[in-house]
Amino acid sequence: MVHALTLNAGSSSLKFGLFELGDGRGDPTPRILGEIDRIGSQPHMRATREDGSVLSDAPLPAEDAADHAGALARALDLIARERPHAQLRAVGHRVVHGGPEHAAPARLTPEVLADLATLEPLAPLHQPHNLAGVRAALAAFPDAVQVACFDTAFHRHHPWVNDTFALPRAYYDKGVRRYGFHGLSYDYISGRLAEIAPHLHSGRVIVAHLGNGASMCGMIGGRSIASTMGFSALDGLPMGTRSGQLDPGVVLYLMEQEGMSVAEISDLLYRKSGLLGLSGLSNDMRRLEEADTDAAREAIAYFVFRIRRELGALAAALGGLDALVFCGGIGENSVLIRHKVCEGMGWIGLELDDARNARGETLVSTDLSRVRVLVIPTDEEIVIARAARDMLGRVG
Amino acid sequence: MVHALTLNAGSSSLKFGLFELGDGRGDPTPRILGEIDRIGSQPHMRATREDGSVLSDAPLPAEDAADHAGALARALDLIARERPHAQLRAVGHRVVHGGPEHAAPARLTPEVLADLATLEPLAPLHQPHNLAGVRAALAAFPDAVQVACFDTAFHRHHPWVNDTFALPRAYYDKGVRRYGFHGLSYDYISGRLAEIAPHLHSGRVIVAHLGNGASMCGMIGGRSIASTMGFSALDGLPMGTRSGQLDPGVVLYLMEQEGMSVAEISDLLYRKSGLLGLSGLSNDMRRLEEADTDAAREAIAYFVFRIRRELGALAAALGGLDALVFCGGIGENSVLIRHKVCEGMGWIGLELDDARNARGETLVSTDLSRVRVLVIPTDEEIVIARAARDMLGRVG
Repeated sequence: MVHALTLNAGSSSLKFGLFELGDGRGDPTPRILGEIDRIGSQPHMRATREDGSVLSDAPLPAEDAADHAGALARALDLIARERPHAQLRAVGHRVVHGGPEHAAPARLTPEVLADLATLEPLAPLHQPHNLAGVRAALAAFPDAVQVACFDTAFHRHHPWVNDTFALPRAYYDKGVRRYGFHGLSYDYISGRLAEIAPHLHSGRVIVAHLGNGASMCGMIGGRSIASTMGFSALDGLPMGTRSGQLDPGVVLYLMEQEGMSVAEISDLLYRKSGLLGLSGLSNDMRRLEEADTDAAREAIAYFVFRIRRELGALAAALGGLDALVFCGGIGENSVLIRHKVCEGMGWIGLELDDARNARGETLVSTDLSRVRVLVIPTDEEIVIARAARDMLGRVG
Repeated sequence: MVHALTLNAGSSSLKFGLFELGDGRGDPTPRILGEIDRIGSQPHMRATREDGSVLSDAPLPAEDAADHAGALARALDLIARERPHAQLRAVGHRVVHGGPEHAAPARLTPEVLADLATLEPLAPLHQPHNLAGVRAALAAFPDAVQVACFDTAFHRHHPWVNDTFALPRAYYDKGVRRYGFHGLSYDYISGRLAEIAPHLHSGRVIVAHLGNGASMCGMIGGRSIASTMGFSALDGLPMGTRSGQLDPGVVLYLMEQEGMSVAEISDLLYRKSGLLGLSGLSNDMRRLEEADTDAAREAIAYFVFRIRRELGALAAALGGLDALVFCGGIGENSVLIRHKVCEGMGWIGLELDDARNARGETLVSTDLSRVRVLVIPTDEEIVIARAARDMLGRVG
């Protein structure tokens, strides 16, 4: 049976999925979903079957997953044990940055891979790790069709005013643009919305992807018009450990007055800020909701305030609002955050139904709310698997 | 007759105003308004009487205005010639930064001056020049009551969520906050709105101060709730030569990948970006409106887009919108910018009356527009003069 492998390589983690492609026309069927984290230090592998039954949840010997290639080999061992007859004909990779050109998944050839490596300066904390995963998979599956799925691609048709910063033109030309990220998630939500509420899909929709990384996307007719993320994965909403929106003058201050280096500021803004920095406690919203401290409550309040502020800003970019969709770990699971984001939003025609919200229904707005509010679980892996299937169908 | 002098010292300029205080209860009456620019290079003095008649519009010998003290002496020469019997009992200074504490004008004592000097790291491009003007005036008028009026003061009661960034708490405690600026202008507009439309003043109002510097302020009941400017005078809207909102990742990129120094990045973001950077032509909106180039049109489109985006964001912070007020050089004079900002804003209940807008009336929305749109010429000098009058009344 023909299968596709999906890979999502982070700095010290590798998520993997095995999807059955069937006849190559229907939606890929997930068979195994797993993750190896703490690669290079204390690696640990978790994996489940499609029915949720656990295949693995155990540490790996450090030398077995010392790098992404080692981790990939361990994942493939598990897949081979569980599905010995799976033919891996296609591999789909999540790649954070596709640069200004890639508005769709790209087949990974040596030329494309070299081209993507030139984008590393645009995403120095993510792109090199993504490409390490690609190289490991190209070595392991030289005959499979491999495809890169970009977090930026879904946003590449933004109007120019929402693609640029107010810098001299030369910076735009050399790639300093508002790329936007989380594109695989938005692509999935756009597709689901077209299935379950096509009249909303065709309108003005804001999707709030709220997880450890967080951003919002404004869409018209299912296409991205604007995103709260900009050039890097730092901008926009505050996140688990990332600052979100920050006055550029603060970065200048940290350098000039605090004498911090670029590496120290990167570490501060990417790893010590956001919910963790404000709460002094945790980057995990569940822990903050349970914590009975002022700082935890204030961290939540700030997170909510910035979401509400961006909701208004994106509505302005869309010329109004027909639907708001929550997704991501926080967006799908936090009754409290959805409640606080939607509180007192009558001015924009939005009214949450607290009972529906508490029950976690798909539609959580009241029947009379002009703006519909939905909760839709996102699925980035299936978007990668579909891209692998489609590329295999074209070139395989 | 008792008079107050107002001073507004920039990096190479000094604006001055002579106001008659009368009995100290009514509004100060402007008698002379002037400015010396290009201090230290090719100084030039312009000054007019209250009726608009020109008192001076000529270059000064370079050695006559080599620094702010010299420029102040030239301004005082002119005032002494024109109003030989004016008793200068009070001097009011515009000071950009009052830090976290000053929420009102402060009498300038040696202690306060020393305290304000400690804030120079928060506004390194403005505060030192402001304080140079203060020192020159303290030397020239040792017996006058002198008062500092802060651009930050009007915003010092923001809710915490709109005062902080998502950084570890220690940065907030050391002053990394969303101060907001243009407070003298917003204070004036708030007061004028209370006079001409008290029912709007008591509601939810966004003021767009659009000049060579530009920001927006959301008010409820005449008090600032939120501002588009943050820690520095860089954040928020794009300006004549300043970038406005910028992903902090761009600053990291400029340092790490472009090898730029803090001074080079400051120069880029403060002096070469904004309308000038995007248009490649000018920081002056009048020139851009007249220019027939794509880059000029795009610079205008970006400026408008960011204003519209912040209009939505501030409306969310206010929980809706009752009135929008335009002020500042562009806000008061550009029919085109007001038109473009308000175009297609029906979603928020705002409809511009193009005929009223073209005529530059005070009320430029249609009779049926739920959100009222006003144009109110701002006057920062009178706010300084009033503060000088009030302080003189208390301590003089």
